[in-house]
Amino acid sequence: MNCVSHIHHGLWRRPDTQQLQYTSLDTWVELAKTLEKAKFDSLFLADVSGVYDTYNGGPETSIREAMQIPVNDPTLLIPAMAHATEHLGFAYTGSILAEHPFNFARRASTLDHLTNGRVAWNVVTSYLPSAAQNLGFHDLPRHDDRYERGDDYLEVLYKLWEGSWEQDAVVRDVERGIYADPNKVHRINHVGPYYQVPGPHLCEPSPQRTPLLFQAGSSDRGREFAARHAECVFILGGGRQEIIADIRTRAAKYGRRPEDIKFFLALSLVIGGTEAQAQAKAAELNETLSIEGGLAHMSGQLGADLGAVDPNRPIGDFDFNGILGFLKSFASRAPDKMTTFGDLARSQMSGHWIVGSAEQIADRLQHFAETGADGFNLVYATTPGTFVDFIDGVAPILKSRGLMQTEYQGGTLREKIFGHAHLAKNHPGAAYRIR
Amino acid sequence: MNCVSHIHHGLWRRPDTQQLQYTSLDTWVELAKTLEKAKFDSLFLADVSGVYDTYNGGPETSIREAMQIPVNDPTLLIPAMAHATEHLGFAYTGSILAEHPFNFARRASTLDHLTNGRVAWNVVTSYLPSAAQNLGFHDLPRHDDRYERGDDYLEVLYKLWEGSWEQDAVVRDVERGIYADPNKVHRINHVGPYYQVPGPHLCEPSPQRTPLLFQAGSSDRGREFAARHAECVFILGGGRQEIIADIRTRAAKYGRRPEDIKFFLALSLVIGGTEAQAQAKAAELNETLSIEGGLAHMSGQLGADLGAVDPNRPIGDFDFNGILGFLKSFASRAPDKMTTFGDLARSQMSGHWIVGSAEQIADRLQHFAETGADGFNLVYATTPGTFVDFIDGVAPILKSRGLMQTEYQGGTLREKIFGHAHLAKNHPGAAYRIR
Repeated sequence: MNCVSHIHHGLWRRPDTQQLQYTSLDTWVELAKTLEKAKFDSLFLADVSGVYDTYNGGPETSIREAMQIPVNDPTLLIPAMAHATEHLGFAYTGSILAEHPFNFARRASTLDHLTNGRVAWNVVTSYLPSAAQNLGFHDLPRHDDRYERGDDYLEVLYKLWEGSWEQDAVVRDVERGIYADPNKVHRINHVGPYYQVPGPHLCEPSPQRTPLLFQAGSSDRGREFAARHAECVFILGGGRQEIIADIRTRAAKYGRRPEDIKFFLALSLVIGGTEAQAQAKAAELNETLSIEGGLAHMSGQLGADLGAVDPNRPIGDFDFNGILGFLKSFASRAPDKMTTFGDLARSQMSGHWIVGSAEQIADRLQHFAETGADGFNLVYATTPGTFVDFIDGVAPILKSRGLMQTEYQGGTLREKIFGHAHLAKNHPGAAYRIR
Repeated sequence: MNCVSHIHHGLWRRPDTQQLQYTSLDTWVELAKTLEKAKFDSLFLADVSGVYDTYNGGPETSIREAMQIPVNDPTLLIPAMAHATEHLGFAYTGSILAEHPFNFARRASTLDHLTNGRVAWNVVTSYLPSAAQNLGFHDLPRHDDRYERGDDYLEVLYKLWEGSWEQDAVVRDVERGIYADPNKVHRINHVGPYYQVPGPHLCEPSPQRTPLLFQAGSSDRGREFAARHAECVFILGGGRQEIIADIRTRAAKYGRRPEDIKFFLALSLVIGGTEAQAQAKAAELNETLSIEGGLAHMSGQLGADLGAVDPNRPIGDFDFNGILGFLKSFASRAPDKMTTFGDLARSQMSGHWIVGSAEQIADRLQHFAETGADGFNLVYATTPGTFVDFIDGVAPILKSRGLMQTEYQGGTLREKIFGHAHLAKNHPGAAYRIR
């Protein structure tokens, strides 16, 4: 994320992390080169379009903790990183509330051109009321309405990316002075419930046309959206076979095969020379985590002010009848009634850490790979430390087991992952192509 | 412009221009390095948010001629160029219709951070109906309404850029775990006629806070807008002392001094070893210009379909009573009644060329500099040819006469041009600062 503190709040204070250098292009370019050298598929950039201002009724804690504020635009990091690399992909998060689809389509196509087809878009619908309020919506549209809007938004995009310029529209005929054949460039004349866009698309076809589509919804409506649109889904934590199977089943409804969607687990790894060293490192990191930052983050995610509860009181003490259902269900995940909301905030950060020697971690990842995961999204604790630890320790083992690529495939990001440059023929977006 | 054909239509067909490589970052990065080596202040990127579809009632000619379509996003070129340079500034065009100000503010701040304060924004209000129609407006707002909207848009931006985060809000206190002091980060609570934005700004203060502000309006309302907001105004062609004097006079109304606005003339130079060689080069370039491209461009600018008139008929033959007033006034600029609309389209492209030896061109620029111009915006005929010709021939003469910098000043782009990093105290945007 183009910010100081993304997930593991408080760790920005450590001397061994470069989070304070988030405004420096050098930091990002070096990171991209490091990942490419190790043959990572892509670098993933999260984003939010608003401030977390639920906790204690305002943004104060978020601002003090640099908890996803300041947060700069992620897309502007990509061109500099792309120019310094050749194969690494770049996935960025963009909310359908933040930008009109006509403009968004152009920006994505531009990125796809400039990166030679190495860009992926993580589709989000926003969950922070402050994002919506600042962006001209009176308030955050209801959850399911956001997905309805998302469907319309993506339909506009598919029409622009896939249906406006035919594949052979651009001829670049110097002799006859014809750059593109106007008979092969079409208006889209989209009239939907949310957007009216006549077109044509302002960009000629880029290497992937539609960027590789990521999504991360896990609600019922979010899964449906993923089943319809997503090519890659990332999921927090391991052991989520149920979600994977469910989304794959839903995909059939849209004419898609189970293998048309790949699943990536978002994991935090703490790697040591030995298990004991890893545990010591985890303990030290855990010590530096900020519970306040975690509570502010959780409050925004839950839409409930955890500032109203004493973070040190055991949850067994609470009468959940007066508390939001989602908060109650969240508390139900606690291991016992002595757990506090402070513990839960901590466990949101470190509870999912996988701690071990390189060999142990490789075993664990192999297990996930054998039980449904197609790949992993590494969430850093320190940067580039987490990545370097992985590259030095775990990657060589995975490579020796044939579980991680040792050379890049050619072509676009989608070709590298799925073997074809453009959306699969049975993807709903492909239906808008001119035959 | 991040496109194939910007002003001199048809020239993309020449082998000595790199316009066909507009999607390659290498092309842009090399250009930026060339300009920085020669000590240019900045590289200026034009833009449009729609397609020119007035001529012959559709976009066909524009598409065939690559006349500003395809047109990719300009901002995404900047990070790669910025990473390869240290001093060169980057001015980009952005329409107030294309993006919500809350989002636009973040993108500009991000660019200002990533470039270490080397970014300028050319404020435009759009004149293509197709831009407005595609971006969710039923039709293009009326000319003066766009400027009203622009005033509100800029007020939001000033509040976010200047008034949301106090200059010393960010403390980065590792010991106490305080990144920023929440008491010094403020909501803006903007409620205007067009926009309601509570804030706070998502970005911490960037080196310039408000990017250096360019503007180019020449209508009555446009001049008023420039007098109020612009720090730099660029004007097409030479000999426009009247506009310069008028805008400087209007500035007083907003508490600004005449010298608070700098004026840049947009010029096309055709430079040869001798005057005769330059004339031969100009004749050859002129031969390659596309009149059709020029007519499509002019039609969009005039909002009148020149496809309805025979471009080869002398204007003396037309009865202008049935023709739009603006078209009539345009035709009145023709040197004589035998001039055709085709001639006018050509003269829109080559009519303002300044053709001569390096010495002659330097004399001409010096004359402009002595009669009100603060600088120049070079419009290429071929790229990087036009720039290389200038750098090799004219720049050394200007430097020897003390008219062009031989070393960069330190600091942000605004410091290099005005001597101060932030908006001047008497600029209307500075009024939103927290004292």
